[in-house]
Amino acid sequence: MKTSEEETGMKKATAQDIRERLAALRDAMREEGVDYLIIPTADFHNSEYVADYFRERQYFSGFSGSAGTLVVSQNYAALWTDGRYWVQAENEMKDTGVVLMRQGAPEVMSILDFLVSNMIPGQTLGFDGRCIPYAKGKEYKDALKKKGIQIAAKKDIGDKAWKKRPSLPCHKLFLLGEEYCGESCTDKLTRLRAVMQKKGTQYYVTSKLDDICWLTNLRGRDVPENPVALCHMLVTMDTAHLFLQEKEWTDETLAYAQKSGINAHPYDEFGVFLKDYMFNGNVLMDPSEVSYRIYSIVKKNIKTTSFGIVNADSPVALMKAVKNETEQKNIRDIYLEDSAAVCRFIYWLTHEADIENITELDAAKYLDNLRSKINGYIELSFGTIAAYGTNAAMMHYDPAKQTPAKLERKGMLLVDSGGTYFRGTTDVTRTTALGPVTDDMKKSYTLTAAGNLGLENAVFIDGCCGRNLDILAREPLWKVGSDYKCGTGHGIGFVLNVHEGPHGIRWRFAGEAAETKIVPGMIVSDEPGVYKEGEYGIRIETILLCVPAFETADGTFYKFDPLTFVPLDRTLLDKRYLTDEQIREVNEYHALCRKKLLPFFTDQTMRSWLMEQTEEL
Amino acid sequence: MKTSEEETGMKKATAQDIRERLAALRDAMREEGVDYLIIPTADFHNSEYVADYFRERQYFSGFSGSAGTLVVSQNYAALWTDGRYWVQAENEMKDTGVVLMRQGAPEVMSILDFLVSNMIPGQTLGFDGRCIPYAKGKEYKDALKKKGIQIAAKKDIGDKAWKKRPSLPCHKLFLLGEEYCGESCTDKLTRLRAVMQKKGTQYYVTSKLDDICWLTNLRGRDVPENPVALCHMLVTMDTAHLFLQEKEWTDETLAYAQKSGINAHPYDEFGVFLKDYMFNGNVLMDPSEVSYRIYSIVKKNIKTTSFGIVNADSPVALMKAVKNETEQKNIRDIYLEDSAAVCRFIYWLTHEADIENITELDAAKYLDNLRSKINGYIELSFGTIAAYGTNAAMMHYDPAKQTPAKLERKGMLLVDSGGTYFRGTTDVTRTTALGPVTDDMKKSYTLTAAGNLGLENAVFIDGCCGRNLDILAREPLWKVGSDYKCGTGHGIGFVLNVHEGPHGIRWRFAGEAAETKIVPGMIVSDEPGVYKEGEYGIRIETILLCVPAFETADGTFYKFDPLTFVPLDRTLLDKRYLTDEQIREVNEYHALCRKKLLPFFTDQTMRSWLMEQTEEL
Repeated sequence: MKTSEEETGMKKATAQDIRERLAALRDAMREEGVDYLIIPTADFHNSEYVADYFRERQYFSGFSGSAGTLVVSQNYAALWTDGRYWVQAENEMKDTGVVLMRQGAPEVMSILDFLVSNMIPGQTLGFDGRCIPYAKGKEYKDALKKKGIQIAAKKDIGDKAWKKRPSLPCHKLFLLGEEYCGESCTDKLTRLRAVMQKKGTQYYVTSKLDDICWLTNLRGRDVPENPVALCHMLVTMDTAHLFLQEKEWTDETLAYAQKSGINAHPYDEFGVFLKDYMFNGNVLMDPSEVSYRIYSIVKKNIKTTSFGIVNADSPVALMKAVKNETEQKNIRDIYLEDSAAVCRFIYWLTHEADIENITELDAAKYLDNLRSKINGYIELSFGTIAAYGTNAAMMHYDPAKQTPAKLERKGMLLVDSGGTYFRGTTDVTRTTALGPVTDDMKKSYTLTAAGNLGLENAVFIDGCCGRNLDILAREPLWKVGSDYKCGTGHGIGFVLNVHEGPHGIRWRFAGEAAETKIVPGMIVSDEPGVYKEGEYGIRIETILLCVPAFETADGTFYKFDPLTFVPLDRTLLDKRYLTDEQIREVNEYHALCRKKLLPFFTDQTMRSWLMEQTEEL
Repeated sequence: MKTSEEETGMKKATAQDIRERLAALRDAMREEGVDYLIIPTADFHNSEYVADYFRERQYFSGFSGSAGTLVVSQNYAALWTDGRYWVQAENEMKDTGVVLMRQGAPEVMSILDFLVSNMIPGQTLGFDGRCIPYAKGKEYKDALKKKGIQIAAKKDIGDKAWKKRPSLPCHKLFLLGEEYCGESCTDKLTRLRAVMQKKGTQYYVTSKLDDICWLTNLRGRDVPENPVALCHMLVTMDTAHLFLQEKEWTDETLAYAQKSGINAHPYDEFGVFLKDYMFNGNVLMDPSEVSYRIYSIVKKNIKTTSFGIVNADSPVALMKAVKNETEQKNIRDIYLEDSAAVCRFIYWLTHEADIENITELDAAKYLDNLRSKINGYIELSFGTIAAYGTNAAMMHYDPAKQTPAKLERKGMLLVDSGGTYFRGTTDVTRTTALGPVTDDMKKSYTLTAAGNLGLENAVFIDGCCGRNLDILAREPLWKVGSDYKCGTGHGIGFVLNVHEGPHGIRWRFAGEAAETKIVPGMIVSDEPGVYKEGEYGIRIETILLCVPAFETADGTFYKFDPLTFVPLDRTLLDKRYLTDEQIREVNEYHALCRKKLLPFFTDQTMRSWLMEQTEEL
């Protein structure tokens, strides 16, 4: 699904190209009377991943990483990006004149502080109001207003200076039948309206792609590896308005939408429609999700009435996170098939592959090919990460983006991968020994496994959120002074984005959203790891489904069912680092893998392999 | 230290008394033009425990529990209290005409909702603005203003109708020498001023008793079992003003205060002083702690200047929570002596006491007497809870408040107790078998011990707060569907309140305060339990001191040192419910108890007992 970078010509930019592009951009800024311009990495929907059409920040900076914000004035340009990308950004922006701001480093100012320090009264800050959520835009506006600085958010100034801009992605929609998703669009809208009413609102405005796709049972292909369509939506108590490029509709999807009471409108008419809409009640919006432009339009429209805006987290995010029975059944099924493919891959890797003559990318392709043969396969849920040796210490390593490393018969290969199928979206990581490993590797792997199983075997009372549970995955690693610098787990969409909120498993406070309680029907990843820079990286990721445990006089308790059934690597497990309880948990998980996967292997080779791998420790 | 209830005549009230008192109160309300009156359980300092002078709510309702709020109108009176007190409140308020509002029950309105529903435009709500924190008072004011309801917060209307009101407590101050507390008042003020400056403020206004006592190294006896004096304070960048009843000063304390740059003022002149004070900068206050009256005075005073109020959690609370080296050394020492006393008590209980002929109260007195002989003993840190059999299932059971139960040679006795000494404040709970126990009791005790040791043995990265750690204490209990309905741990003052913030160990979100990270120098209790109504109650409470563990490439890690060394009850521990790791943890703790306490026992009896109790399982 990914549009290759060569096609759009984005990768070919030299430092000279960037300097010329910035010069053209500055001309456009002068014409518009904008002194400083913010260019984020964002589409109109606050999506995690964006299509090439939206890679304006890359076009003007040369930096191709997935996260970063460019700020340009007439005589200065700087790019903020986080620690994952400092090396890459420095290389890609060499000689372009763009200064790298190492976001998160103690000496580096935030963008807002930078603007407050450098802009002077009477100046104007510009950004495309469609690409910045309202909450963020308002933060800029409020802070700069005090200094007498104006905001210009109505134009995409970069567009004027962008030669050969890729076109807006536009792919045909498809319908996710109710045999897969288990609930009609009509019923979902009814549930949503009940929440709207409970919050005292009569309208819901959203631009969140996966929320809208979930609500309508429609799917698209407009974002690489996320099966969503570019769209916006207004839901009222008796109508629903969906804004979508007209060419994306098929007869089937249009019929389904109409039957569900949805009115189709052109994608680019959302703002105009809202501007003139007669709101007759309060409007529910999530200011951290709806764009500055759209939110402002609604705010202005409603100002003259006695109604108002109710700010709240997206109610759809929570509805979507709790999978229904049909979805759960489909997910359980597809994870078995997906796990079987991963097992076949591991068998190939450890028994058949010509290790010395293949690269990380070859390994990834072998696995991708196995997945593509699974019934109902749509696409990968993200680009397969196959990271060998020291590469695995980089959490976001992508072998397709650099020269892939050659494999050797020693050390470990980390493979993080998943597929999008009609029966669900998968995600799994296993780390596999390719030959001799050090005792330290075994220790790290074993303690990672202990943490992974610690969370998998959690029992917890109703009300717990990810912050309460996270330590179960980390404690074995913390006890030896090891910590992974990321969350332990994320939600996963159903034939939607592989990363999905509102819940998650992490220990740090990250706003109210991170406080979402984990309830039956929610899916979370369980992926502790050890990352030793310059040495190796280990991650074990099993996907868990929250299910009821029991009810007692003291309350209602929940637990997790694993969905992933890929045995741990026995050659990397060292009993010396496990308690008897942890050994029992390994054996229990392996017994489950054996029971669940054996029916999928008809060939004696794989059956024998599975039996061996799931022997008691 | 506790003023007996008989002395103040508060316990003798009959239903008829209460009806007469309410009639007199309603007369006073009419005179003042107040339609509804709120009477909380509070002093002027938002203290957890209050002296009899402040028990106005009890005087007018008859309900003697420690938490509850009375609301009175001309033809209605209702008392809100939580589940701990429903039975007691119903008994005590029988025939008084006061309606019990079961706070927390789903059908029961909050006080605010009740007022909003029942009051009509033009009416006036009264409360003593000194007894309600600003944040709470403002919530009432804002919500009622919309309905056209006035607030009258300047008078203590109940005082007019209260016959024979106990006098305001007034006891001599004493100084906690720097050999105990380790830091001079001058140095503490310097540190506080640095925090004030960092927050852009030049003034700090506080009424928090233990904060002020910590800051000044003064201690008092005005609150039962909390060694604090009634006082208020204003700290500026170069002066400090302490408002305290003049009779409380001694020559020594006054000299110390003056030497530390503190100006002494009469207790009741705080408001007047602030009203006329020339504020020349911003004022730091904690609106959830400073009273409605005081906060409003400052707000009104500062309104005409270009300065403002900065709302923030008390900076002193955090400074006070992190014990310095001298305090830590003293605390470690006193906990050993205190633990030795508890061991002697347990020995007496299990070997010497005439069990069939004593009550819970006799047991408590025996322990209290042992404590009183420890060098530097000041008072109990709270009334000893000795709860036998089914009584132990009530978390807040106080044998002194009802007919104490007789002990028997079966089941368990839960004893939660502590002392205030010059070298620190202690708190410890052990549950002891008095004879045969059921297998279910053993199972519950053993899993409680596993949870207690799970938290005690935690290793965690810098940044963790109580919400991250709580599950370590609960997981063994949750795995069998058991849960205790309270936090796992609280901070403890140094020769101050036995309950102290801002940190704590609990799993539920409870505002920003509960997010305080646990850092070296902090003390927390570790007290999981099992409470089976009508059957039994178990609690094991060990006090922990946070200390550095190690620094690695991945971060700074902390762990806990136990301060309490009282062996667990071996007759209640059942290895069948423990993992090998948990058995190791029990043995490790017992080895520490043996090593630490043996030097305190010179008599062979206690030495042998300790050796037996700390044998490996």
